[in-house]
Amino acid sequence: MDNIEIIFKNIINNNIEFTKHGKVATYIPELAKNNPNDLGVYLITLDGKEYCAGDYNKKFTMQSVSKVLTLMLSLIDNSNKVFEKVGMEPTGDGFNSIVNLEIKDIHKPFNPMINAGAIATTSMIKGKSVSDKVNRILDFARKLANNPSININEKTFLSEKETGHRNRSLAYFMKSYDIIEGNVEDILDIYFCQCSIEVTCKDIANMGCVLANDGISIHTGERLISEQICKIAKTIMSTCGLYDASGEFAVHIGIPAKSGVGGGIMAAVPHKMGIGVYGPALDEKGNSIAGIQILKELSQKLDLTIY
Amino acid sequence: MDNIEIIFKNIINNNIEFTKHGKVATYIPELAKNNPNDLGVYLITLDGKEYCAGDYNKKFTMQSVSKVLTLMLSLIDNSNKVFEKVGMEPTGDGFNSIVNLEIKDIHKPFNPMINAGAIATTSMIKGKSVSDKVNRILDFARKLANNPSININEKTFLSEKETGHRNRSLAYFMKSYDIIEGNVEDILDIYFCQCSIEVTCKDIANMGCVLANDGISIHTGERLISEQICKIAKTIMSTCGLYDASGEFAVHIGIPAKSGVGGGIMAAVPHKMGIGVYGPALDEKGNSIAGIQILKELSQKLDLTIY
Amino acid sequence: MDNIEIIFKNIINNNIEFTKHGKVATYIPELAKNNPNDLGVYLITLDGKEYCAGDYNKKFTMQSVSKVLTLMLSLIDNSNKVFEKVGMEPTGDGFNSIVNLEIKDIHKPFNPMINAGAIATTSMIKGKSVSDKVNRILDFARKLANNPSININEKTFLSEKETGHRNRSLAYFMKSYDIIEGNVEDILDIYFCQCSIEVTCKDIANMGCVLANDGISIHTGERLISEQICKIAKTIMSTCGLYDASGEFAVHIGIPAKSGVGGGIMAAVPHKMGIGVYGPALDEKGNSIAGIQILKELSQKLDLTIY
Amino acid sequence: MDNIEIIFKNIINNNIEFTKHGKVATYIPELAKNNPNDLGVYLITLDGKEYCAGDYNKKFTMQSVSKVLTLMLSLIDNSNKVFEKVGMEPTGDGFNSIVNLEIKDIHKPFNPMINAGAIATTSMIKGKSVSDKVNRILDFARKLANNPSININEKTFLSEKETGHRNRSLAYFMKSYDIIEGNVEDILDIYFCQCSIEVTCKDIANMGCVLANDGISIHTGERLISEQICKIAKTIMSTCGLYDASGEFAVHIGIPAKSGVGGGIMAAVPHKMGIGVYGPALDEKGNSIAGIQILKELSQKLDLTIY
Repeated sequence: MDNIEIIFKNIINNNIEFTKHGKVATYIPELAKNNPNDLGVYLITLDGKEYCAGDYNKKFTMQSVSKVLTLMLSLIDNSNKVFEKVGMEPTGDGFNSIVNLEIKDIHKPFNPMINAGAIATTSMIKGKSVSDKVNRILDFARKLANNPSININEKTFLSEKETGHRNRSLAYFMKSYDIIEGNVEDILDIYFCQCSIEVTCKDIANMGCVLANDGISIHTGERLISEQICKIAKTIMSTCGLYDASGEFAVHIGIPAKSGVGGGIMAAVPHKMGIGVYGPALDEKGNSIAGIQILKELSQKLDLTIY
Repeated sequence: MDNIEIIFKNIINNNIEFTKHGKVATYIPELAKNNPNDLGVYLITLDGKEYCAGDYNKKFTMQSVSKVLTLMLSLIDNSNKVFEKVGMEPTGDGFNSIVNLEIKDIHKPFNPMINAGAIATTSMIKGKSVSDKVNRILDFARKLANNPSININEKTFLSEKETGHRNRSLAYFMKSYDIIEGNVEDILDIYFCQCSIEVTCKDIANMGCVLANDGISIHTGERLISEQICKIAKTIMSTCGLYDASGEFAVHIGIPAKSGVGGGIMAAVPHKMGIGVYGPALDEKGNSIAGIQILKELSQKLDLTIY
Repeated sequence: MDNIEIIFKNIINNNIEFTKHGKVATYIPELAKNNPNDLGVYLITLDGKEYCAGDYNKKFTMQSVSKVLTLMLSLIDNSNKVFEKVGMEPTGDGFNSIVNLEIKDIHKPFNPMINAGAIATTSMIKGKSVSDKVNRILDFARKLANNPSININEKTFLSEKETGHRNRSLAYFMKSYDIIEGNVEDILDIYFCQCSIEVTCKDIANMGCVLANDGISIHTGERLISEQICKIAKTIMSTCGLYDASGEFAVHIGIPAKSGVGGGIMAAVPHKMGIGVYGPALDEKGNSIAGIQILKELSQKLDLTIY
Repeated sequence: MDNIEIIFKNIINNNIEFTKHGKVATYIPELAKNNPNDLGVYLITLDGKEYCAGDYNKKFTMQSVSKVLTLMLSLIDNSNKVFEKVGMEPTGDGFNSIVNLEIKDIHKPFNPMINAGAIATTSMIKGKSVSDKVNRILDFARKLANNPSININEKTFLSEKETGHRNRSLAYFMKSYDIIEGNVEDILDIYFCQCSIEVTCKDIANMGCVLANDGISIHTGERLISEQICKIAKTIMSTCGLYDASGEFAVHIGIPAKSGVGGGIMAAVPHKMGIGVYGPALDEKGNSIAGIQILKELSQKLDLTIY
């Protein structure tokens, strides 16, 4: 029994209590139905070993975890022109903040990991139609997860579309400054779709694996993303991946990661492994409260920090 | 020849040069077609004398001048419940600012004279349908102006609807905080309609007259608005009527007034007169640059300040 | 028995209960010793009639009420150059806010009725030394109050000097942008002195009287301030006098007034009267909670609104 | 001739042109005297090889580079209690911004790499007197640099003390919220002293070396800092070390580093090397414009990114 296997025996037990201190997201009605006690984790090493514990096979929607995918896809489609419309700086403000879009001299979103920035990167994804663009994102997710059966959770999509007024506000604000082009409702449909992609811990562990492996699938050996785009994604995950708790996560855990209000966190340990955790009870900043603790335990026991 | 008559002989000449230092609004394409050299004024005393000069019979759209009307109509419809959704404090920020909606603890617009606040008051106007509500505003405008032929400028309406993304952003932001209820696009249609009401200097001078006369038409003797609502409107015009130049306007001119980016300013001198000015060349804050100067000359020569 | 006399019989009783809903200022330790149940009012008409009720003869420190005096004195000393360093716009922010000094393009305080603005006007008062400048302010206060025995409360001055770190922060921020010149601690000493001038309701009623009378003492017939400076002061009191509750005060009461966290409010009803109220129990925005109610009753019953 | 030696032959020539696009800091008069054309670099590998080029032996003041030292020293003195007074989140605002201290619910500085945060960590350094505390910082700097002759540049210290009003403003603001305790001017004296520590590229390369080596001197084998504190420092350097350009630096260079407006950048490549660069021509955000380019060249050619 190797080291990771030993850790995994107790990892859920060690961290399940933290779920009690968090709350499921309620501003998207469909997410409010999640079970706050769920907690799961999946770890895949670059040499192909897999470890799992807890509710690792429960499905959840990617939400902001998808922001990494649309950042990479828009970089594939537009190269560095992406950064003419969205910055790469962390911000001390919340994930749905609009303040800086108005008060800063340059009215572009600070980075692609906050809602405004992700709406901007989504708007740059190429395709003939809304459904074409959505399918490209979905195909990209399937490839990275090595799972062709990944799909969109229709109910969550509709729930987000119906209640996503804050995102609408962000999008129209950017439209007024020409940060985004094209039909705003179309862009939001794509954005809500990507947020509603349904995955398991294993899926996002596999995605993290591709990032950790600088773009090459450990299953097929195929290059799925360029090394450069992988590096950009991992760097921005490191500085901005956990909203306005990114700095604290870096100090305590030190792994490139991206969280979502669905409860998932995708982590990519460079040259070592991909990890997916799921725990829908969130802390005040919108991150999986017990999920962070699981990653903390893994980082400390396996010495995973990149710093 | 009375005092006002003498002043009016030179009032355009005295102030026309200021038009050169301003610019017509361009963010609404239809407004960009206005002639920056236009300048007109109309003054009606409560005892029925009328004075005019310059381009007093040119038509222009009310834009923000209409905010006074929808404030009063929503007060008629909802009494002081209006102020549960919109404040009465001046703000140092621009007319289309969104920052305070996010950073203040109470996420309601500061006052009904900025865009967010006016969208909120518009959302509270009663009626069975969009067109019903628009017609109520239009009827109210006609009554106050004593002019049944007042109408909406369709081209301006369509231009605003097409390009009004900043207002959309404000509206959806408020929707996300339940400041406004109902369909946002419907509310914006009403809002864009009221902005596009086409008037002359005489029309808004007549409106100012009703306010100056505490709600009673000088033409028919009919009470059109309660005294209390008139006072509220005049007070909020005094503290917030010229966007973030309201304080300076109060110091230099001291008359309850409301400006619009169409170039109009409606002024109500309590117990004395109503004044309408039109000059589409705007200063940096969105107020008629020469229009303010005309009101300054009138205030100083006729000692009109209320302070 | 005239109308005002009748009102004054019950005015304390009618409003004393409001004192229970407020709190004395605690951030200046010396002010924390005030009795939250105190409530007094003094009214002087321009034809010399005087009315009083409650704790009208209790002494309290002027605090922000003094901002009106230093505005006028710095206008006397510097004419309109004052407005190169401080604006005349109301702001939706609190009296000690620093945000706008940083984020606005023009780094000057919004108006002379907030702390930053008053520190700026104080810095422009002329004199050979700190004590010379303090004496000039004190003499000005004595003249306006028609009371040569007015003095500074030393304990309050020392208490403010010791704990006034927020004001220090504002002052050094402005120093870094050259809004204020000279030694910052000296300027703050003068500022803390003016805040600590000790007065009664009668004193500030007399001050309000001079303002209401456009600058001429009703006691001596002497012109103490120019009409123009009086108008400026009354206008800025109207738009900015009650911090970020100025708009609401205008709607409900409609009288040029200035409050202070010592519990005083000085009101000037143009061409009619001066009023001084004192009630150290403050509302959340730092204004005398029962004092505002007394002014409301007076405004409504005597129809004092200027709008 | 090894790889680094080859790179160093042309590294100044390759990057010297960038100095023309920057400007020396002028807000501290003494810094304005720096030569904008200066450019130097020093690199020390953990196995003791040293490389240098350009103006590597010119002296400059540490300025914000010292923030890393005071963070570590205050962690040594106070352990994690440091983070009760200062956060660990990057902020999109400039190094001397005060806005977030006011508008965020928790009025503590975002991180120890911005001025407010560094003043806070400095305030927690232990010692009997100002000079005692300064000497502890100086000793710490000497040990880390393996250079006992390091000293304070008195002229720069006096220049900063005389003109540092923005820092005074930050400090008094924090004092008003009890973020910092003790005498503010004393704390600022210590802060200005640490900023004025005079070093060369070699000195900060040595400091970076200690960090890269997880706290152990490569010269003496002595543990100078705990591994944990080293990790915290390197992490916060990664997310916050280049002010509001930290995110971009991470994407393009990917090395824990800290810049100062004196023109220095200290970089620590974990387990590999320390690098010191000096180039006083700064970009708009206050970072050495050519210094960043040198680090970029090194990172790309030697594949140094940690992500």
